[in-house]
Amino acid sequence: MIDRGLSYGDGLFETMRVVSGRCRYLELHHARMCHGLRRLDIALPDLSERMLAAVAAADDGVLKFIVTAGDGDGYGRADGAPGRVLTCWRPAPPATEDLRVSLCRTRLAWEPALTGMKHLGRLPQVLARREVAAAASDEGLMADPEGAWVCGTQSNLFLRVDGSWFTPRLDRGGVAGVMRRVLITALAPRLVRVDTAMLQAADRMLMSNAVRGLQWVSELDGRQLKVTPEGRKLSELLAPWRLDG
Amino acid sequence: MIDRGLSYGDGLFETMRVVSGRCRYLELHHARMCHGLRRLDIALPDLSERMLAAVAAADDGVLKFIVTAGDGDGYGRADGAPGRVLTCWRPAPPATEDLRVSLCRTRLAWEPALTGMKHLGRLPQVLARREVAAAASDEGLMADPEGAWVCGTQSNLFLRVDGSWFTPRLDRGGVAGVMRRVLITALAPRLVRVDTAMLQAADRMLMSNAVRGLQWVSELDGRQLKVTPEGRKLSELLAPWRLDG
Repeated sequence: MIDRGLSYGDGLFETMRVVSGRCRYLELHHARMCHGLRRLDIALPDLSERMLAAVAAADDGVLKFIVTAGDGDGYGRADGAPGRVLTCWRPAPPATEDLRVSLCRTRLAWEPALTGMKHLGRLPQVLARREVAAAASDEGLMADPEGAWVCGTQSNLFLRVDGSWFTPRLDRGGVAGVMRRVLITALAPRLVRVDTAMLQAADRMLMSNAVRGLQWVSELDGRQLKVTPEGRKLSELLAPWRLDG
Repeated sequence: MIDRGLSYGDGLFETMRVVSGRCRYLELHHARMCHGLRRLDIALPDLSERMLAAVAAADDGVLKFIVTAGDGDGYGRADGAPGRVLTCWRPAPPATEDLRVSLCRTRLAWEPALTGMKHLGRLPQVLARREVAAAASDEGLMADPEGAWVCGTQSNLFLRVDGSWFTPRLDRGGVAGVMRRVLITALAPRLVRVDTAMLQAADRMLMSNAVRGLQWVSELDGRQLKVTPEGRKLSELLAPWRLDG
């Protein structure tokens, strides 16, 4: 029998930055996973202990914590399917650098039943990442099926226009990132639909990700953007690898 | 390392009805998988031989033939990632019966980058299947994010209105089924957007699936539909388990 995570994408994951057996935003990762498992009706009563133990046992780096709906054939499954935990680890990426961001033609999926979830079906991101490689940029912006700009291939988007902060609504695609949650508290942005005109009007832009933290965009589709000392200060302050935060 | 099929839904599958080491619509399954692998840029030069061998080695029943992009971490991957084949088998379901069909609230995903593909991310279907169980029906109709009716949780839809056959366009969701292809040839339907009024105006309706063939709908959301001897004849003629077709 093949795991339902592989057969049907029937599961969720968290990608966590681990330092000295701890993860700064563990509570947010846990809360999101908890919420997702409830929505998918996958049972894992000891999620909290399992997550804590996995983080404590991991070396410094990036821990991927996957929960699938276990074995089973056919789309249908019982209520409260017992979750199966899989973990894997990789070294941390190089320290934060400014991003050159290109625009992807590959569109996000609009999944009304899965809004904001970090589920296992990430094919649009896989395809978009190939565009990023072809453009030799660092990250690529993706639009939803209706053409609004939502997020990077592996990050959420924040932009400043006329002195105010904005971040895209996720009702047509995108993952509700842990670092996005942190930044919504820090920057109090308005949640909006971001069209191309708004993108062009932005004078500051950053991408967030629970592994790399908060990265500033120095170039968007060929246009230079300013990165300020205050901006760098914020990145440092909120960095997932800072344990004294 | 965890297979990319599990980590990212980075792969495709075919579900084939096998009888006496043969599959009636093997060429169509092969063509669809081939097309999908090209779109995802997964390399499997010996697909044809692998598929034929898997079918020949399978017992009578249902063979699931999965191709993933193999190992690899991170959304990005090399061009022409070498495909990994996984297969599993289950007994055939009971012989074709008429279907009592309910309406699902769970919406399909609209995936512009993956239109019609039978890829590994099937969470909307998993969730919709739970609605079918709760309704104690046989199959559930699913709508795309904009509300047009597209397909069943595991089947494509054909309906007759005013003497003409129609089948939903798949530009906003749904899988381009092998049996759908066969029926498009057999019934020459018009490809349209199907709203609720059209559903209610239909006097004949059938669902198609490469394992169960062509099943007639005897009840849709409480309304009785007629199943005719000519209809049954067509089901028999096109059945995936008939090898003399």
